Amino acid sequence: MSEKKISSNVVWHHATIDRRRREALNGHKSVILWFTGLSGSGKSTLAHAVEERLYDMKCRTFVLDGDNIRHGLCGDLGFSDADREENIRRIGEVAKLFLEAGVITLTAFISPFRADRERVRNLVLHGDFLEIYCKCPLEICEQRDVKGLYKKARAGEIKAFTGIDSPYEEPLTPELTVETGRESLEESTEKVIGLLRERGIIPDA
Amino acid sequence: MSEKKISSNVVWHHATIDRRRREALNGHKSVILWFTGLSGSGKSTLAHAVEERLYDMKCRTFVLDGDNIRHGLCGDLGFSDADREENIRRIGEVAKLFLEAGVITLTAFISPFRADRERVRNLVLHGDFLEIYCKCPLEICEQRDVKGLYKKARAGEIKAFTGIDSPYEEPLTPELTVETGRESLEESTEKVIGLLRERGIIPDA
Repeated sequence: MSEKKISSNVVWHHATIDRRRREALNGHKSVILWFTGLSGSGKSTLAHAVEERLYDMKCRTFVLDGDNIRHGLCGDLGFSDADREENIRRIGEVAKLFLEAGVITLTAFISPFRADRERVRNLVLHGDFLEIYCKCPLEICEQRDVKGLYKKARAGEIKAFTGIDSPYEEPLTPELTVETGRESLEESTEKVIGLLRERGIIPDA
Repeated sequence: MSEKKISSNVVWHHATIDRRRREALNGHKSVILWFTGLSGSGKSTLAHAVEERLYDMKCRTFVLDGDNIRHGLCGDLGFSDADREENIRRIGEVAKLFLEAGVITLTAFISPFRADRERVRNLVLHGDFLEIYCKCPLEICEQRDVKGLYKKARAGEIKAFTGIDSPYEEPLTPELTVETGRESLEESTEKVIGLLRERGIIPDA
């Protein structure tokens, strides 16, 4: 009876470092900032600018966008309705993991369909998903056309392009709207930082 | 010419907080610790124990395991060969994102096939993927049978169960082998922490 138990009989207990403990270590809360808007509306640029401001405040952040998702996790998906839905579903699930990891998670995808965005919102608790609408008139996005995609869509080389021959469903009650067609990047960035302060995600300045 | 440019004409620059800057903020490097072994070999328990030790050292960590993957990101997948492969592929891609996020990422999946593990290893740079073989005799795993899965597999209620009617391909040159059938949890944990020190992922004690 006094023998040292061999480990095969020991029930190893399951240590758990959870979200709250990670947030305590980080000195801020985690959240999903879901940027949505037309191609060229500045979602990814804004997300990265917000991330840079947060880094300077020593916050832990990560941006999920086409650059790191489309060729990796979702490299097997195309642009059919079903594939777009699955794309957003996976991104939502990954964002949820980063949320649990204590990270301020910024996602920058057109995510044109309300139902897809709502599905992600419903994956997490109220307040963990903040929808940020990058509102920018189609004409300005098309005029910028940084990636040349609008030109191709107009020429019919790309089918089902959001804003051209596929709809963009505007958020009805986003937590924040930034008018990326007329605000400067700095203004939009400050609005997002303001939202994070207001919601108690990051400490007051 | 001296007019203030309207933002629609401004090319917003792309700020980038990259892995190196995150690692500098965290005070440690990021890495993928890929735990592999039979069901019941203690992968998940060990990963969580390592995470707890790392948390006490103020390291940023995250454990990917069946609990947070199978019902979420991979909830659409079953246990066919193709689905198992896709399961490991997605986990690898998510681990790569966490690696980029500066996080010490621990994954705890049976991942029985060498080719699947090698594919994940090849996703990242040399040294970013450390394979940890949780070596434990089948008899001990089956005797523990914490989840009752071996019993079901022997009764034919679960098909293609690793170790019973589906093979487990042992790692040929893992970065570390822990003998979870005879070591204590503390011993195995210390070995993993030792590996992280040796590789310069975390500072010396």
